[in-house]
Amino acid sequence: MINIAVLGYGTVGSGVVEVINTNGARINQRIGDELNVKYILDLRDFPGDPIQEKVVHDFETIVNDKDIQIVVEVMGGIEPAYTFVKRSLQAGKSVATSNKALVAKHGAELLSIAREQNINFLFEASVGGGIPIIRPLNSSMTADEIEEITGILNGTTNYMMTKMFYEGADYDEVLKEAQDNGYAERNPEADVEGYDACRKIAILSSLISGQQVDFEDIYTEGITKITTEDMMYAKEMGMTIKLLASSKRHGDHLHAIVAPYLLSKDHPLYNVNGVFNAIFVHGNVLGDAMFYGSGAGKLPTASAVVADVVDEAKHLHRNIMTMWKSDKLELLPIKDTEKRYFVRIGGNPEALRAHLESEFGPVKIVTVEGLEDEFGFTTEIMTERAYEKNAEEFPGIKHMIRIEE
Amino acid sequence: MINIAVLGYGTVGSGVVEVINTNGARINQRIGDELNVKYILDLRDFPGDPIQEKVVHDFETIVNDKDIQIVVEVMGGIEPAYTFVKRSLQAGKSVATSNKALVAKHGAELLSIAREQNINFLFEASVGGGIPIIRPLNSSMTADEIEEITGILNGTTNYMMTKMFYEGADYDEVLKEAQDNGYAERNPEADVEGYDACRKIAILSSLISGQQVDFEDIYTEGITKITTEDMMYAKEMGMTIKLLASSKRHGDHLHAIVAPYLLSKDHPLYNVNGVFNAIFVHGNVLGDAMFYGSGAGKLPTASAVVADVVDEAKHLHRNIMTMWKSDKLELLPIKDTEKRYFVRIGGNPEALRAHLESEFGPVKIVTVEGLEDEFGFTTEIMTERAYEKNAEEFPGIKHMIRIEE
Repeated sequence: MINIAVLGYGTVGSGVVEVINTNGARINQRIGDELNVKYILDLRDFPGDPIQEKVVHDFETIVNDKDIQIVVEVMGGIEPAYTFVKRSLQAGKSVATSNKALVAKHGAELLSIAREQNINFLFEASVGGGIPIIRPLNSSMTADEIEEITGILNGTTNYMMTKMFYEGADYDEVLKEAQDNGYAERNPEADVEGYDACRKIAILSSLISGQQVDFEDIYTEGITKITTEDMMYAKEMGMTIKLLASSKRHGDHLHAIVAPYLLSKDHPLYNVNGVFNAIFVHGNVLGDAMFYGSGAGKLPTASAVVADVVDEAKHLHRNIMTMWKSDKLELLPIKDTEKRYFVRIGGNPEALRAHLESEFGPVKIVTVEGLEDEFGFTTEIMTERAYEKNAEEFPGIKHMIRIEE
Repeated sequence: MINIAVLGYGTVGSGVVEVINTNGARINQRIGDELNVKYILDLRDFPGDPIQEKVVHDFETIVNDKDIQIVVEVMGGIEPAYTFVKRSLQAGKSVATSNKALVAKHGAELLSIAREQNINFLFEASVGGGIPIIRPLNSSMTADEIEEITGILNGTTNYMMTKMFYEGADYDEVLKEAQDNGYAERNPEADVEGYDACRKIAILSSLISGQQVDFEDIYTEGITKITTEDMMYAKEMGMTIKLLASSKRHGDHLHAIVAPYLLSKDHPLYNVNGVFNAIFVHGNVLGDAMFYGSGAGKLPTASAVVADVVDEAKHLHRNIMTMWKSDKLELLPIKDTEKRYFVRIGGNPEALRAHLESEFGPVKIVTVEGLEDEFGFTTEIMTERAYEKNAEEFPGIKHMIRIEE
């Protein structure tokens, strides 16, 4: 029998128990042993719930029980999750977690403790919920240099962008609707400011580079400034706007960023709508690949956590995860990165074109019916430094959105 | 040092050597050892090619060399590939293959030899080329009951369907173009009749059921009867037509089929165009997921083969692959499966509607401008047996296409 303890009986924790109850026979067959939830750590009691007899309030019960081989951490947040996970690993217990904040901040250290102990620290559910991406990077794309990972990694903002694009709804209206139906938190900052996506792309960047990428170093811009007017221009250009989290290789550097991007119709991420997430990967020999699915939600996330538990149960004393080193990777400064830009500006295109082209070089003008006292233009490829310098000449600029090719 | 032998120096075989040359340093780092191509088996010589010194013409050299730990079989076809693979496994050498015909026919036996020998038989590249699907099914979706796998598994036919849909080109024209630019063989039967997709869905069906699914048992219908007119109706209904290979769970049975299907705009496979492949998976807790990428091509396929080699090098004496048993799974007979149907029929909708509804039940009429002496209709869900019985009453029926919901 393989005994596990679940830290936290919230949404994901109760999902983990539900998945094990629902598919237990099949899971046991795959492990070749019986998986048993021995403890559930929570501050609360759940009288009447069949799991009540497993509930403990003291982590010491779990960490000191030699029968516990695997610990599932689904509490979220840095503390006490970090202390509990570290002590579990040091006690020789493998850990599966869905906690992106923990992995982004302490992943390198926790992976290295797991390797020393010859056990495992797995975190498939921390990025993309139910979408398998960590394990494919770790064991399927091993013949490749991964040159790019670009994802729609936050379901809340993708739901909002989709509504704004297809229904012409404005930001505040869509946010309220997302909050009303439970897709967005009452305090939506972590989603709409891009902080959630930032931690996820930090984890993916660390994995593909093999070094620590600190999320604080990643340029992060949310969707709060995206307007109905921006979406009208996007439509006019046959594009859409998505919050992308992206990491691209430039020589020995990575360019990592979270920002709203204009995306053309033939990009594989163009059609990823609603609360779905997707992750686009480009390998130097594999070419383009994409992984699509439910990026969040109780059961999809729990499915990924339990798949990690199955892997750990099959590799009880054998470390299987690629490490990343704790030495920090310097990212390419945002100002040195190159891309095209879409810019909205007040005024008249005919009057301004000559001046614009004298600063930006060739531009393409975009006009939208109903937006009469402004227009848009797209630039050629240039660094963000060059863009900013050029833009200083034009106080009438209302908004700039990057373009993903 | 880990020595490998490559059987066959054709497109995929030379791709395997190229991938190892290009990404060797990174691959060696992941394995923690040096990967060395010691032999290449081919009937031909390659004078002037740097690999010439590795070329051998006799398989005995390879199978009798104790230093060879991994054999890469990329010859294709059943014989002599089957004999070579079986003898390699029996000699304690792990095997990686891209050979779908071999895996579909002899997978259960070869997996069982590998397990007895405590080595590995891996075949990621046999389905979906560079798209990771076998390994995710084997190690990521282990918390789920997989209830459905539906894929666009053949790039040639998807290229043709895409051209016919977007450019209104007719079948013969598109086939000739696909042949001219190398996407289709001179004898295109294996692709256009669905035989290639059939072997791939047989492999996936065996994997998700854990039992042998014989490809001969799978109802297989190609794209040769799809016309420009069919595509016009599809457009009118906001749908497209794709060659799908699908396996769905019905109680203890699977319903496996390869056929052209009408697909609505919101299906994740709708936008998979050109030579790309994609595989949609539904798990009972994971929900919907999709994997997208290059389903064929020298380097993407070689990338998947080399990833298998890396996995085998990391698990030299440890079997990691899920088995499927050699006892045969009975598929649900095609006549007992249920779906909706789109039907084209000669005549006038107003004159025929009453008679149609008396047989088929409620139908939705579809008419297309420019097709005046015929119309289309879609049925409610019914078994194929019921559809056929009803259709007997209408000799004017020109074509039936199944609808994927």
